[in-house]
Amino acid sequence: MVNKRDFITTQDFTRQELLDIIDLSLLLKKCIARGYYPPLLKNKTLGMIFQQSSTRTRVSFETAMEQLGGHAQYLGPGMIQLGGHETIGDTGKVLSYLVDVVMARVIEHKTVVELARACRVPVLNGMSDYNHPTQEIGDLCTIVENLPAGKRLKDCKVVFVGDGTQVCASLGMICTHLGMHFVHCGPDAHQLGADVRAIWEENCRQSGGSWQSTSDREAVRGADFIYTDVWYGLYENEMPKEERVRVFHDFQVNRELMQLGNLGCKFLHCLPATRGEDVTDEVIDSAASLCWEQAGNRLTAMRGLLVWLTRGKKEPLAEQTAAVKAELESFLVEKGLA
Amino acid sequence: MVNKRDFITTQDFTRQELLDIIDLSLLLKKCIARGYYPPLLKNKTLGMIFQQSSTRTRVSFETAMEQLGGHAQYLGPGMIQLGGHETIGDTGKVLSYLVDVVMARVIEHKTVVELARACRVPVLNGMSDYNHPTQEIGDLCTIVENLPAGKRLKDCKVVFVGDGTQVCASLGMICTHLGMHFVHCGPDAHQLGADVRAIWEENCRQSGGSWQSTSDREAVRGADFIYTDVWYGLYENEMPKEERVRVFHDFQVNRELMQLGNLGCKFLHCLPATRGEDVTDEVIDSAASLCWEQAGNRLTAMRGLLVWLTRGKKEPLAEQTAAVKAELESFLVEKGLA
Amino acid sequence: MVNKRDFITTQDFTRQELLDIIDLSLLLKKCIARGYYPPLLKNKTLGMIFQQSSTRTRVSFETAMEQLGGHAQYLGPGMIQLGGHETIGDTGKVLSYLVDVVMARVIEHKTVVELARACRVPVLNGMSDYNHPTQEIGDLCTIVENLPAGKRLKDCKVVFVGDGTQVCASLGMICTHLGMHFVHCGPDAHQLGADVRAIWEENCRQSGGSWQSTSDREAVRGADFIYTDVWYGLYENEMPKEERVRVFHDFQVNRELMQLGNLGCKFLHCLPATRGEDVTDEVIDSAASLCWEQAGNRLTAMRGLLVWLTRGKKEPLAEQTAAVKAELESFLVEKGLA
Repeated sequence: MVNKRDFITTQDFTRQELLDIIDLSLLLKKCIARGYYPPLLKNKTLGMIFQQSSTRTRVSFETAMEQLGGHAQYLGPGMIQLGGHETIGDTGKVLSYLVDVVMARVIEHKTVVELARACRVPVLNGMSDYNHPTQEIGDLCTIVENLPAGKRLKDCKVVFVGDGTQVCASLGMICTHLGMHFVHCGPDAHQLGADVRAIWEENCRQSGGSWQSTSDREAVRGADFIYTDVWYGLYENEMPKEERVRVFHDFQVNRELMQLGNLGCKFLHCLPATRGEDVTDEVIDSAASLCWEQAGNRLTAMRGLLVWLTRGKKEPLAEQTAAVKAELESFLVEKGLA
Repeated sequence: MVNKRDFITTQDFTRQELLDIIDLSLLLKKCIARGYYPPLLKNKTLGMIFQQSSTRTRVSFETAMEQLGGHAQYLGPGMIQLGGHETIGDTGKVLSYLVDVVMARVIEHKTVVELARACRVPVLNGMSDYNHPTQEIGDLCTIVENLPAGKRLKDCKVVFVGDGTQVCASLGMICTHLGMHFVHCGPDAHQLGADVRAIWEENCRQSGGSWQSTSDREAVRGADFIYTDVWYGLYENEMPKEERVRVFHDFQVNRELMQLGNLGCKFLHCLPATRGEDVTDEVIDSAASLCWEQAGNRLTAMRGLLVWLTRGKKEPLAEQTAAVKAELESFLVEKGLA
Repeated sequence: MVNKRDFITTQDFTRQELLDIIDLSLLLKKCIARGYYPPLLKNKTLGMIFQQSSTRTRVSFETAMEQLGGHAQYLGPGMIQLGGHETIGDTGKVLSYLVDVVMARVIEHKTVVELARACRVPVLNGMSDYNHPTQEIGDLCTIVENLPAGKRLKDCKVVFVGDGTQVCASLGMICTHLGMHFVHCGPDAHQLGADVRAIWEENCRQSGGSWQSTSDREAVRGADFIYTDVWYGLYENEMPKEERVRVFHDFQVNRELMQLGNLGCKFLHCLPATRGEDVTDEVIDSAASLCWEQAGNRLTAMRGLLVWLTRGKKEPLAEQTAAVKAELESFLVEKGLA
């Protein structure tokens, strides 16, 4: 597979490619809702490397592979040694011979970049400390399914409230890439750095979208979608509860904050949520909350991405296959294994 | 799936429903023994949550799903955070979008109850500190396959000897539910409490069965089946060896105790056994021991339960499916992914 | 399965059987390369017991089962209690009812021997402290695919350089079994003991091969294949870096050592490699290095072995199957589960 594509960041894809992946994802969702499970990943194996525990990413990748006829192997923390006794590059070279596609949830972004470089098969980033691109595709599926009446993507304002996590960075990337209007509203000390802002800026220049980073809650006004994430930061280095409540309490998504958005404004959350911190029960359990469908669209996105990345190789010649099948059958008969 | 059924306790099922599940389980066993693997769980995914390690429950659930065309995901201790960063209710809501059926082996019974309440898909209890209902179905399959000549279920006496574990509670529930004669024979301080006894009592009132809790070994007389479990208690809080031998040594299943039963009395054990404690090598390895077939019937039970709980939804319309299939195929051709 | 065969050591197999397994493995590889995935393991489940973490063995077993239509269950460290609360014998008896074939990577060789004795289904040794027989089959596949021009297996000289690991013992076993010329070149204190040497000796007597253990690097001359393994020993008891470099530094596979071999001499490594210790970057990344294809042939070997060990049972009668299928269908209709 010489021309393999990896899915490390949505920045490596054109706007049209991203829209195609979203379309494919939604089409596969429709197929399965109608009872048709297209076997597009038949005989394909996904190696899933997790350096951290994960619920949504892991379950949705595994279900996606199986529903489309393939298989996913869970290679959890401590099950294989990624960068331990073996370099990441060597593990990647080996996995390329043993599976058809690889996903990795990594602690450091450079690990998944290095893995993609080493693997001859497609590699998907299942979240790093830098970004969370499969989440982006699932989120856009949810937004497309719930566009405000009469609006196109380019007309939508999406406000991420709270900590500048990798999910915030990612949401900003895809929104600005697709010409949407993105705001990160959070404490000054928890906004994203120059590298991410430069990407958002360049995206907007090309797409006609807009972006803003601010601590002013007034920026929430006019939001079509309000999105948040937990306040505790990365698992490896969690902020103590008392401190995070002090830092972030103005950025809780509650009734008052939701009312700054447009009429019919929807609530999104990548989950897990810390109820009573980043979001109130009232909001997350309301009719405005899309976060459960959004979690379901993690599966929607995985199906589309996996099909997109692993398809397109020319099929082998039927005659070749028939000849080798006949050869195998006579071997099995001869050796009493038929 | 509005009318979903969970399998948290056999008490939620009628006598006829339990007998139907047992029949279905034995019929599926017969199919597979004849080489026919009915694809009744095709495209279905089971999420298996384990808060504790498990051999029989885990392996039998996974094999059952795969033999019937589905797939099982192992979500072991530490792999997902059930009740950690995310509430059990929220995890349940999310899983409902990502898998078709859930099983959970939990430390506290209330966890699986809460999970079932939150999930829109069926939830099976893979053992809690309160009961072990999938074990009940497997045990009844074994008893039905090994009924003493000329006896019906209602004629059978089943004696559980030893510690009043959740397996003892469960065995008493299904035996009394089905009109059988159940005895727990163990130390006074290790008999089951008023809540479980009330269930046994009410079951007997309705079914015509009987129950008894006693420390008198004479109660073993006339047993058709003698059943035991380990003495060390729950993994979380094991009783030291010296203490448990002192407390339970009169309740070891050995040749002498087996001879209190009926001629042809059979030995059952949920396993693992602690040889030399709860049962002697002589008994567990004897022709009277059914415990290995019984372990095999964990698989028998899982197949029947999974089919029973996940079937019965109306099939989607063939025309709908054909249309969406055509739509997908033209998408793939157009994008070069065919 | 009365006449089950286990795969604990290649010594239990005749020369012809080993050649047949290698042939079958290479034939299945060819099928899959042509796009034909023969469903020879359909409905079969493999239980994979790992007492240690593993990349290649685990991934290749799981991919092999799935590509041929079956399923593999990962039973990792701590997931089941092998020899903990339950004896190995009892776990083996139980697994025989729940899966169709078992593999085990064990810390002590006697564990896999005991497991094979207890199981009624075939057991494969996925590496022990004594040997690594599935590695042997994969290595021979690689050697067969890369025979020096004009040479047969019997004409080949294979030199294992470095520590006398279980991989070294295994390589010596299959080479001498198949009439090849095997050398272990390593420090005197790290050569293999009398038990392994006796096997090599007897193999050579029967096959016409030869073997040698030496610390003299001159023995590398004329090698067609130079093979090495890591220096740190078993995971459980690793040798500190400083010490191992002192002990083994003369036995690093570098350009100079490779040049002692025949023109076109190939490099093999079971991996993981410790670059800069047991092998230089220059050698492992050179055109002479087969170690990546060799890792891919772990999968090649697993397919052949699994098919070989699980096939050959007579198929059930079609009439029997049809009858039980009809019985199931009427049950499902009657109970509203159709």
